[in-house]
Amino acid sequence: MYNYKIIVSYDGTEYRGWQKQGNTKNTIQGALEKAVRAVTGETAEVIGSGRTDAGVHAVAQTANFKLSKKFPVEKLKEKLNRNVHDDICIQSVEEVDERFHSRLNAKGKTYLYRIQNTVESDVFRKNFQYHYDAELDIDKMRQAAQVFVGTHDFKSFCSNKHMKKSTERTVYSIDISKSDSGEIRMLFHGKGFLYNMVRIMVGTLIEAGRGEITPEDIEHMIELKDREKAGATAPACGLTLLEVEY
Amino acid sequence: MYNYKIIVSYDGTEYRGWQKQGNTKNTIQGALEKAVRAVTGETAEVIGSGRTDAGVHAVAQTANFKLSKKFPVEKLKEKLNRNVHDDICIQSVEEVDERFHSRLNAKGKTYLYRIQNTVESDVFRKNFQYHYDAELDIDKMRQAAQVFVGTHDFKSFCSNKHMKKSTERTVYSIDISKSDSGEIRMLFHGKGFLYNMVRIMVGTLIEAGRGEITPEDIEHMIELKDREKAGATAPACGLTLLEVEY
Repeated sequence: MYNYKIIVSYDGTEYRGWQKQGNTKNTIQGALEKAVRAVTGETAEVIGSGRTDAGVHAVAQTANFKLSKKFPVEKLKEKLNRNVHDDICIQSVEEVDERFHSRLNAKGKTYLYRIQNTVESDVFRKNFQYHYDAELDIDKMRQAAQVFVGTHDFKSFCSNKHMKKSTERTVYSIDISKSDSGEIRMLFHGKGFLYNMVRIMVGTLIEAGRGEITPEDIEHMIELKDREKAGATAPACGLTLLEVEY
Repeated sequence: MYNYKIIVSYDGTEYRGWQKQGNTKNTIQGALEKAVRAVTGETAEVIGSGRTDAGVHAVAQTANFKLSKKFPVEKLKEKLNRNVHDDICIQSVEEVDERFHSRLNAKGKTYLYRIQNTVESDVFRKNFQYHYDAELDIDKMRQAAQVFVGTHDFKSFCSNKHMKKSTERTVYSIDISKSDSGEIRMLFHGKGFLYNMVRIMVGTLIEAGRGEITPEDIEHMIELKDREKAGATAPACGLTLLEVEY
């Protein structure tokens, strides 16, 4: 078998997330598998580095799939792109070692969360930002974010209540900046993240930015290991998977 | 009657253009009139500076409407914004002289047309740019564009075949630039434009950029006064109304 690694961008607005779910149509994975079938005649599972939720975007999601035949990678890329809608773009196709697995071999991920912190919304960015018009104190958000950095049990920050595997994760860094135009950019770099973990951290950091909770409150939220104690899940549209490291 | 002037931004992707058409739902004008009715209880015609087609965007479309009652403008703006979807945003509301008419008083308009001239498409900009992957010579486009500047009969550049009024228009300037990321930005400034005129000029300038036609060919196109002789109508998504002058 030949193993192909692809890097894919997508605007997730119109999709029900990455992962195929039974008969659910309109998933990124489903669209890519359909394209692979159309181009190569082979039925292959397109394995992503991880799921992204409905409405979440990716600049560089990584995936791989195996085919019985060898294809020239540039041609394969061109043909795949002709078989997906224009909200998906395969940036590169590479033949890799047969043992490469985009999920199991991922060493780190970077997510960007964008908040548009202005009174008026920007109609052109509505699918890519969370419009939040109340005042947020960036310094308080930065201080609060440092509590998440390191290795913790993030059970309180996971939407999957029936998660049986470990909910321990390592966050390398969280960087928060604000542009002159009022866009707050929050970069999350970690070894891996639980289901909805970034969005719940964002919802919690917004409470910190409002002055409603302190870094100590967040320490307590982590200790309680109870999803109910953490902040709300911030909207999907603000979230973009920027990079997967191997 | 009190006359209110509004400046409106919209992402035109989901709309069938500015203008109400019989029972056609989902127009910008229709959405604004519905909001005015919901907020003020009055039925008013929202008069735009001009129509924009389905899929065309606006940073600052100008419109006006008349009400029998006086409303505080800031409150009115806030309430109107709460009554439109997040792809429309009323930037300002101002009470103006009763004689002000957003279409008849318009002295000039600026449109921006964006072409993404790269091999791969940018999935995040697909609704706001025309992705064109073949090579375009910007200098040739600039030279060709100069033919349009000035006062001409633009009948060849108008999609309305049954146009009974004058098809003479004045173009003040056309500026074309290209960013490092491969985005070609074409700014059209004129006293007014015919139906589809900017998009047909863009389609024609693309032919010039491909080296298929010369400035002399464009002069000839104008002389012939025949829509069939000019270039194709470039896609709506690339077009944005930037400003209306009074």
